[in-house]
Amino acid sequence: MVLVKTNIPEDTLLVGVAASPGIALGRTHVIDRQRLSAIERRVAPGEVAGEVAAFMAAVDSSKRQLNEVRETVAARELAEHLYIIDTHLLILEDRLLLDGVVKLIQEDFLNAEGALKRTLKKFREVFDAIEDEYLRERRSDIDSVGERLLRNLKGYTQQPIAGISDQVVVIAHDLSPADTMQMDKARVIGFATDLGGRTSHTAILARSLGIPAVVGLETLTVRVPSGLSVIVDGYLGILILNPGAATITEYRRKQLIQAARDEELLGLCLLPGETLDGVRVHLRGNVELTEELPLALRHGAEGVGLFRSEFLYLNRSAPPGEEEQLSAYRAVLEAMAPQPVTIRSLDLGGDKLAPEINISDELNPALGLRAVRFSLKERRLFKTQLRAIFRASAFGQARLMLPMISGVAELWACRELCEEVKAELTAEGVAYDPGLPIGIMIEIPSAALIADLLAREVDFFSVGTNDLIQYFLAVDRGNEHVAYLYEPLHPAILRALRLICQAARAASIPVGMCGEMASDPLYTLVLLGLGFDELSMNPPSIPRVKEVLRQVRRSEGEDLLEQLLTLPTASEINRCLEDEMTRRFPVLFRPPAP
Amino acid sequence: MVLVKTNIPEDTLLVGVAASPGIALGRTHVIDRQRLSAIERRVAPGEVAGEVAAFMAAVDSSKRQLNEVRETVAARELAEHLYIIDTHLLILEDRLLLDGVVKLIQEDFLNAEGALKRTLKKFREVFDAIEDEYLRERRSDIDSVGERLLRNLKGYTQQPIAGISDQVVVIAHDLSPADTMQMDKARVIGFATDLGGRTSHTAILARSLGIPAVVGLETLTVRVPSGLSVIVDGYLGILILNPGAATITEYRRKQLIQAARDEELLGLCLLPGETLDGVRVHLRGNVELTEELPLALRHGAEGVGLFRSEFLYLNRSAPPGEEEQLSAYRAVLEAMAPQPVTIRSLDLGGDKLAPEINISDELNPALGLRAVRFSLKERRLFKTQLRAIFRASAFGQARLMLPMISGVAELWACRELCEEVKAELTAEGVAYDPGLPIGIMIEIPSAALIADLLAREVDFFSVGTNDLIQYFLAVDRGNEHVAYLYEPLHPAILRALRLICQAARAASIPVGMCGEMASDPLYTLVLLGLGFDELSMNPPSIPRVKEVLRQVRRSEGEDLLEQLLTLPTASEINRCLEDEMTRRFPVLFRPPAP
Repeated sequence: MVLVKTNIPEDTLLVGVAASPGIALGRTHVIDRQRLSAIERRVAPGEVAGEVAAFMAAVDSSKRQLNEVRETVAARELAEHLYIIDTHLLILEDRLLLDGVVKLIQEDFLNAEGALKRTLKKFREVFDAIEDEYLRERRSDIDSVGERLLRNLKGYTQQPIAGISDQVVVIAHDLSPADTMQMDKARVIGFATDLGGRTSHTAILARSLGIPAVVGLETLTVRVPSGLSVIVDGYLGILILNPGAATITEYRRKQLIQAARDEELLGLCLLPGETLDGVRVHLRGNVELTEELPLALRHGAEGVGLFRSEFLYLNRSAPPGEEEQLSAYRAVLEAMAPQPVTIRSLDLGGDKLAPEINISDELNPALGLRAVRFSLKERRLFKTQLRAIFRASAFGQARLMLPMISGVAELWACRELCEEVKAELTAEGVAYDPGLPIGIMIEIPSAALIADLLAREVDFFSVGTNDLIQYFLAVDRGNEHVAYLYEPLHPAILRALRLICQAARAASIPVGMCGEMASDPLYTLVLLGLGFDELSMNPPSIPRVKEVLRQVRRSEGEDLLEQLLTLPTASEINRCLEDEMTRRFPVLFRPPAP
Repeated sequence: MVLVKTNIPEDTLLVGVAASPGIALGRTHVIDRQRLSAIERRVAPGEVAGEVAAFMAAVDSSKRQLNEVRETVAARELAEHLYIIDTHLLILEDRLLLDGVVKLIQEDFLNAEGALKRTLKKFREVFDAIEDEYLRERRSDIDSVGERLLRNLKGYTQQPIAGISDQVVVIAHDLSPADTMQMDKARVIGFATDLGGRTSHTAILARSLGIPAVVGLETLTVRVPSGLSVIVDGYLGILILNPGAATITEYRRKQLIQAARDEELLGLCLLPGETLDGVRVHLRGNVELTEELPLALRHGAEGVGLFRSEFLYLNRSAPPGEEEQLSAYRAVLEAMAPQPVTIRSLDLGGDKLAPEINISDELNPALGLRAVRFSLKERRLFKTQLRAIFRASAFGQARLMLPMISGVAELWACRELCEEVKAELTAEGVAYDPGLPIGIMIEIPSAALIADLLAREVDFFSVGTNDLIQYFLAVDRGNEHVAYLYEPLHPAILRALRLICQAARAASIPVGMCGEMASDPLYTLVLLGLGFDELSMNPPSIPRVKEVLRQVRRSEGEDLLEQLLTLPTASEINRCLEDEMTRRFPVLFRPPAP
């Protein structure tokens, strides 16, 4: 270990994104993961065969390396995440990618690097246009594979993370899932990167491994040398460079307290989500494919409240067939049985689907052809998905959830198609659950206002707060200029939630929430007061929400709600709620001062 | 007159946009208004001075031609529309345009045509990104001037419309306002064009002149020769080519009936907007600058319910100053006195304002930085407008209306600024109306849901149905894929309107509507039942709405509303309403079968 003298001031604070909770104190180990640049040039007709061969050789090397990682990992406890490596291997076999590159070499006389660069750019554009943060992050899989291919094309080798021998905080421009999987917790005590978001595979893996991590630090690698003393605060998403003695003492203490708290929270997982006065609120997980199922179970998820089906459709040359979907849905249902799994039908716009890899030219895509609107237009595609979901329902507790319903007529059209599917399956003698519950997302203002009319027609509601707030306030929260107006506690939102819950109660159907609001314990008491029966969230949030839930009574939530509803502005409501929750749960809501 | 033999089948129907009501039967006169193409090329340094001179000569010729039109028209009765010619003359003096072209010639060595083409393209892009149909149509002024410049640059002369001697239906690719102004009603009995929309200056002029017109017929000029027998149906927006004897007889009859009806409707203008049971509903005009004021008065508008201030800001190198705005607002107030004029503060995004002519990169501009959000960010700009409005209030019955209010906090921020302005004016000893009513547009779902909280803080409401419907249903009606979901009679919209009206009534403030729904007599009875005090619309719609209003009772509207509110879907509500209105007003709502 080399100690580094730098001119970095003591306690320099860098703010990034909290990717994996925990605190790590140690010295940095900067690894070379700077992106390489592909250099495009024209080749002579005589060079074409050589470039194609070089590209195919790079594909083979990349596959070999990934298979090696797979085998190394297989010996350890990350088995549940191997599908990520499999995903990357699948990308390396994607005809769109391979044929695209070869075609550019052969027909446009591009060198292999240039052809790869152009083909990847097309793939990336599809992902960049996606509004769902979770899905947009899947782009990093493409980047990761592209990077590996380019490195192999250029003949570079990577410094393997598996070779690190000291206890270090890894610092890198970006880390691929393969990198992260090779981390040994005994050696890599934390990491920080320039790129990345909370929902990247790398972040998910870090949480699974229990390695504290901060990502999205932007210019980190330019500023930090190897051997520098740092603190990774994976709770707050900050990195402290060159911490002073007082800061180190403070963080050592915090490390001990947090370790005790983490223990305590995980202890909650086995206990039911129940209030002091015995009201059961089901706490479920928002997940995708088999990915986070073990994580969800470990955090005490009582089933899956939102199973996103989009990933099945993305980044491929043809939409998934019925059998492929069936086996995906069945796997999730069987893994979670006897707990229920709510499968949401396709929630994308048509522009996101291959093979027409083109960017939508809708002026306002958020107000465009998406979700159930798209499904009802592409009925054959929709019917294939419905058939797969109904067939999967024979293997567990399935529920079907329709996104972006704006009125009763759309719902009728969907139900009619469901009836068609059921009749077909019956005629074919194929098993399915004839009582499969059919519910809808409430995420469009019109649906909130006619929740009573919709409640008569469905088996459950699930409120998608992210979109609901966006449309109710006419605010695109991805737009930095107006993001300040995105207020979950705007009085109109509280009233809309009340309307929805009252309509559900009157019709005796359960009402859940699967937007981000459900995962923040700040809102748990209010949501209890509103009458939600189910809260579905990213699994690691479950224990903290459950902790609040188990210490309150519904009547307290109702009282708090009444109090909040008398206030005219979001900021007043927010202040009132924060005061109340900090008073009740000082440890939970007073953030540790760094 | 040459009679034309064609292979066009009898009664061939072309469907376009109804631009100006009335029926015309006659023979076509196709005039050459095909767009010219600018050819871009590089010039040698020695040619630069010549190209600049050619461009400036084209500017001079264009000005001379427009001044000639101005003088010809001055002798006729279109004086109120001369400002359109003035607008075009102003464009010809716009530094952004002139300097932009000259700079491209001098620095990029483009020929004058090419430099003009590129500069116009930039201007156009700004307009294309505008969502308001009315404002987007202002782009045609730029096109019109650009076309004239190009024609002069290329040395083409135009066949003057003033020279037409027969009674004809003019057929053209597009007509400039200057073209339309030269039409003599005794000779041009109707016209039809490939391009254009209902709110283009050309359409407005046609309505003022009382010439039946259909626009937006797309490929019309390719299909129609001169001398063809046609019928222009400016009510339905259709053109019938080569009409058969039966069709001609039918239309002759219709022409007589409609003429009688038009007479009757205009007779209504002097009567108050009042129901059989004495409920007064103020019918006002949506207008812009001085443009449609005489038209509004002629159609019996009781003041202006929506005065759009955007045009003052568009298409110029710096925002309008206080004095310029004052004189514009004052002119309108004085023209309409003693009737009130509701001035809406700027309802645009910042990307629309010069001099930064750049396209917004907001992913969803409809959910972005617009209207009062933009004004509150650019406080100096906003304050200048507020000062001008308050100062203008000394000269008539002014009202201030704030667009896109989503909650109470935004409203407070605006009112604070108003108080600042009032204090300043008082200190300066400048006259203003201290009781100037301040109201808001209700066009965001959150505002509808907290209408009771907002009603306490303002002097009036005005419902902007176009945006309200768009946000409530999460539908961009400009998007052809989802336009079918844009339903003014969605039960959620009816409920939202009821909430808004109830809140206004409870707070004893007047509630109006200034969206398109107000101008369609189909909705008049329902809006009466909801309790609207004011309907503001494009002036020519006033007589038809008044005709319905004067034949009904409020209680009938309330009964109808109750009946509609029991229905679960927009299409059922629509059918029920149409049946009811057709039963009550068979002439008004049964469209004449062609």
